[in-house]
Amino acid sequence: MKITAVIMAGGRGERFWPKSRNNCPKQFLSLTSDGVTMIQKTVKRLGSLVEAEDVYVVTNAAYRELVYDQLPEIPRENVLSEPCARNTAPCIAFAAAVIKQKYDDAIMLVLPSDHLIGYEKIYLKTLKKAVTAAEEGDNLVTIGITPTYPETGYGYINFGEEKGDAYEVERFVEKPDLATAKKYLASGKYLWNSGMFVWKISSVMKNMQKFMPDIYEGALKIGASFGTDSYEETLVTEFEKFTSESVDFGIMEKASDIYTIQGSFGWDDVGSWLAVERINETDDNKNFFDGDVIAVDSKRTTVCGGKRLVAAVGTRDIIVVDTDDVLLVCSKNSTQDVKKVIAQLKEQGRNELV
Amino acid sequence: MKITAVIMAGGRGERFWPKSRNNCPKQFLSLTSDGVTMIQKTVKRLGSLVEAEDVYVVTNAAYRELVYDQLPEIPRENVLSEPCARNTAPCIAFAAAVIKQKYDDAIMLVLPSDHLIGYEKIYLKTLKKAVTAAEEGDNLVTIGITPTYPETGYGYINFGEEKGDAYEVERFVEKPDLATAKKYLASGKYLWNSGMFVWKISSVMKNMQKFMPDIYEGALKIGASFGTDSYEETLVTEFEKFTSESVDFGIMEKASDIYTIQGSFGWDDVGSWLAVERINETDDNKNFFDGDVIAVDSKRTTVCGGKRLVAAVGTRDIIVVDTDDVLLVCSKNSTQDVKKVIAQLKEQGRNELV
Repeated sequence: MKITAVIMAGGRGERFWPKSRNNCPKQFLSLTSDGVTMIQKTVKRLGSLVEAEDVYVVTNAAYRELVYDQLPEIPRENVLSEPCARNTAPCIAFAAAVIKQKYDDAIMLVLPSDHLIGYEKIYLKTLKKAVTAAEEGDNLVTIGITPTYPETGYGYINFGEEKGDAYEVERFVEKPDLATAKKYLASGKYLWNSGMFVWKISSVMKNMQKFMPDIYEGALKIGASFGTDSYEETLVTEFEKFTSESVDFGIMEKASDIYTIQGSFGWDDVGSWLAVERINETDDNKNFFDGDVIAVDSKRTTVCGGKRLVAAVGTRDIIVVDTDDVLLVCSKNSTQDVKKVIAQLKEQGRNELV
Repeated sequence: MKITAVIMAGGRGERFWPKSRNNCPKQFLSLTSDGVTMIQKTVKRLGSLVEAEDVYVVTNAAYRELVYDQLPEIPRENVLSEPCARNTAPCIAFAAAVIKQKYDDAIMLVLPSDHLIGYEKIYLKTLKKAVTAAEEGDNLVTIGITPTYPETGYGYINFGEEKGDAYEVERFVEKPDLATAKKYLASGKYLWNSGMFVWKISSVMKNMQKFMPDIYEGALKIGASFGTDSYEETLVTEFEKFTSESVDFGIMEKASDIYTIQGSFGWDDVGSWLAVERINETDDNKNFFDGDVIAVDSKRTTVCGGKRLVAAVGTRDIIVVDTDDVLLVCSKNSTQDVKKVIAQLKEQGRNELV
């Protein structure tokens, strides 16, 4: 069966402010020293598994030009612009309905655009196993990452019986506290929920029809108008009516025939500035310095420099991000609080800095 | 007797890099929110004790224009330009010889240009006591500050017998380690060496003649040429021959009739970026923020902002100094290491940043 990929690229990446901005979120940035952006890596690592003409990108209308620029190999009509943000369920329904116009049925890989993967060969092998599992019946397959430590920032997948290369999913659980996360690890029965899904168009649409009929109907209308003069109008009208809903909550937690393929391929969701030291090479003092940096006795310090010299003297466990108009100095314990700065800026009406 | 003041303003202020630069050192900056520079404060706080025409500023030739700009009330001929840096003894000899051309004898207050004083009335009272003590015999009088904590960054004055408002100085001691500093405090017999001196021109010149005859002779030649066509040439020729010597080591530690006047007037030598939180008002979390700063859960953080927004998130015990071309992020434990950054920049030939 034809394999298509849907890259979800509508996110705002607030936790990577001030590099990530409203007009250029995280997925369009490179956080690695090779200069390749997150979304470019996402597409490249698919290799020959998916042809360029079968790669779809769903993004916010404001980022369409960024996608054209960064992914010139993808047909422009495959760049699907959401008129507004409605979380992952409407995003996936929209893409499924459009793809259904082209192929009667197809495998659909649903992939976030802002994750990193260290072992791409193993990743591709895992995706292929997921494709095989998804070809059977109406299976909905999610990629579960074998945890390497009790992370409290991810959701977990509790799996049960083995079925070929897959496991039946018992339940999805929300981000746990540390004690619970440790229990999950010790049990050997939990995987990290990576947010990557594999299914047939027909399978996911059946489930949409059942669990979110309004979104299903609206998506069908958008799909039917795709390529016609009324497309833009239909898209705006129908999409704005959608309720904001995640695919996890809207389908995965309710449907039957949910499977997970266990993966272990150096996955990183790059969820905060803390990720920079994980995904880049650090020096003997566990520092990561990008740009023009002079350090004196600094340890465990991350500097993402801009155009100016950054001098780090005696720093410990701190992240410095320098841009033309904003400087962030953030304790490693507080990376989640970067969002609070954005909230204050919005309150102050300083949207040019958001 | 006429009272003159000699403001020493040749320093480089390396510990206040990157605000303090080769082309605008610390004494020409304001480190307080009132925008008044250190050297302006130094002159202003003399009040009516010294007339403007009797205030002399000794500085590096490169900073002459800065002095003209910041202290327009001082006659331009009172701005004495050292052709090169030779520490405090040649600086004082130069000024003494020039003043001697105008007044046969006079009181000479020798004052650093980059200290702050909280209680100016008490300061003036202390200076007047020092003047009285200096008028007697050939007394050399130094202002000693009553220590308020065991500072290891200052030299100390060990004093003995009381003599009027003054005390005889037993000896000067170098910067102690913490245990020694604590002993000094407990003894009640030690004061901080503030680097402020009061004496008659005649007294200090007698001692120069005795303990540093080469500098004495050279200074006399410069003084004799002052106001003539040969002044510039004589100044350069003689000054460059001077050995680099502090007045503490060159005279104070060798001469007799050394006295100290005890002072307690909120003196701060503003010796490093740590001083900023001492000399400014801090918020409830002991933060000091200057400029456009958004802070989330920051404590004991000093931010001297520049033109951009600085966001401080979860920071503790850190100093951030933002300028157009350099950003400094410095642990409060490491403020003395700022000099090491300058050393590295010099090694790299990046003098535009020094």
